[in-house]
Amino acid sequence: MYEEFWRESGDAAELVIPGWQTMSYFSDVTNVCWFLEPELDQQVRRLHRTVGNAAVDGYHVIVGTGSTQLFMAALYALSPDAAGDPISVVSTAPYYSSYPAVTDFLRSGLFRWAGDASSFEGDNYIELPGAGGKTVHDFAYYWPQYTPITEKADHDIMLFTVSKSTGHAGTRIGWALVKDREVAKKMTKFVELNTIGVSKDSQLRAAKMVERWSMLRAAAAASGVFSLPEETSGFCNFTKETAATNPAFAWLRCDGEDVDDCASFLRSHKILTRSGAHFGADPRYVRVSMLDRDDAFDIFVRRLSSLH
Amino acid sequence: MYEEFWRESGDAAELVIPGWQTMSYFSDVTNVCWFLEPELDQQVRRLHRTVGNAAVDGYHVIVGTGSTQLFMAALYALSPDAAGDPISVVSTAPYYSSYPAVTDFLRSGLFRWAGDASSFEGDNYIELPGAGGKTVHDFAYYWPQYTPITEKADHDIMLFTVSKSTGHAGTRIGWALVKDREVAKKMTKFVELNTIGVSKDSQLRAAKMVERWSMLRAAAAASGVFSLPEETSGFCNFTKETAATNPAFAWLRCDGEDVDDCASFLRSHKILTRSGAHFGADPRYVRVSMLDRDDAFDIFVRRLSSLH
Repeated sequence: MYEEFWRESGDAAELVIPGWQTMSYFSDVTNVCWFLEPELDQQVRRLHRTVGNAAVDGYHVIVGTGSTQLFMAALYALSPDAAGDPISVVSTAPYYSSYPAVTDFLRSGLFRWAGDASSFEGDNYIELPGAGGKTVHDFAYYWPQYTPITEKADHDIMLFTVSKSTGHAGTRIGWALVKDREVAKKMTKFVELNTIGVSKDSQLRAAKMVERWSMLRAAAAASGVFSLPEETSGFCNFTKETAATNPAFAWLRCDGEDVDDCASFLRSHKILTRSGAHFGADPRYVRVSMLDRDDAFDIFVRRLSSLH
Repeated sequence: MYEEFWRESGDAAELVIPGWQTMSYFSDVTNVCWFLEPELDQQVRRLHRTVGNAAVDGYHVIVGTGSTQLFMAALYALSPDAAGDPISVVSTAPYYSSYPAVTDFLRSGLFRWAGDASSFEGDNYIELPGAGGKTVHDFAYYWPQYTPITEKADHDIMLFTVSKSTGHAGTRIGWALVKDREVAKKMTKFVELNTIGVSKDSQLRAAKMVERWSMLRAAAAASGVFSLPEETSGFCNFTKETAATNPAFAWLRCDGEDVDDCASFLRSHKILTRSGAHFGADPRYVRVSMLDRDDAFDIFVRRLSSLH
């Protein structure tokens, strides 16, 4: 869907990097995030000011190899320093299906996945996102092409990613807006230990694409095909009109009484979806991507409408 | 040092990426390493065949965000699956000073730093590199600009990085040559969980720079300034002549009887080095980078030669 747009923008969105450029590990040694290209820092702040979806004044920008790395960095930064039991990490279902695996794959002694926030009991935890405890706000989809921008968010840690804002998933660039300097320093340390910084080539590309984001036509995904569990709308401060949400994913429920497992049912009709079970939800729900290429999406809609 | 070379190569080393290119998470879904750009795979194999420093036939190429990420991926892949005590990770001193921190910063239940290999006792361990146990060969400096290429290495896991082969540290690209398919799959899984792949922009740039590697003039660092602890030479299969080693770092020893801490002594003379203590070695030694920019290196040599 995004690819078509960037093809049309032609040379304006082309990136040229001379062979001798950005060869060093360092970008700006005076910055807490010493591997952040100043150009990306500026464009990220400019974009949030334009869109009005997040506060940037007084925040540190931390760049990561996609927002997944920054998610781990945030867990690392928010975990207690003292040795002891790992801190619990929770999220309200349906959550991003990678959270449990990303949290637990190294069996860290610092943090451990503890499942659905609504059934968690305890005082000391990290929540994604959340009102209590230590919170990390994953704002990958808080952009006007997905949902009305109703407020300028100003939480302690907010995660964004180029893959969902401009569509450049392969560039692997995410950023965190972080209020507290010490947390920002620990997140930077994580990225240093994990990958000694973040590709400068990708940072420059992300800066270019973010700069050109305002060229993006309202890239609304075809909606109305599915009845979403709950349709919501709101006044969007960016577009200055009331708009329905256009989530990047649709939650589709198989209503047939003989269908327990919606994903298997659809797979038998050559429609690939992700079962709700991956997201801590009921397997009668599936998650359907709304961001596929136009031709693939057309075939999907045709197949779905042929089912009775 | 490398920067000067790439400046002289001009347009030939320039990378151009159209806005719509490599937007997807995927590069080649038929490959074990599904996020590896086929162009980088080809150029890596071609380079090793040209230089003769490592076997590539029958090996999987796994790309990482620098070789640090691949180091962690290798620990992840070589750790036992079953729950139990973490496996010990050892290396003969002086080792790369980041090994202990990178191994331990998440307090993983899978692996744990256990220090100098020469004093380690036990049967079950991962060694960097090593003859026994499960071994990971860090070959960052096994290139003819640093050392004679005396044999085509063919170990189970061999790590390389663009930062030390072409000098593009900021591009954050490393690769592993991996013999065993299951190990290759687990290393790929690590990178997937950690950063969902590796910047495509950087992969394309690395492919371009690696392709042009053969243009690299013998980039021998100024040598003979320090007397290295042990000078070695050998017949280089790449240059076809007997050559002295040109390590990227010099181990400098402060011989003065009143100097216990060589790094502090040099710092007081405005020369910044890394103490041997970081590498599990004697603090009377320091590690000096031989790869700085020409002007900085000139100043360093001038300051050093003024000391008596």
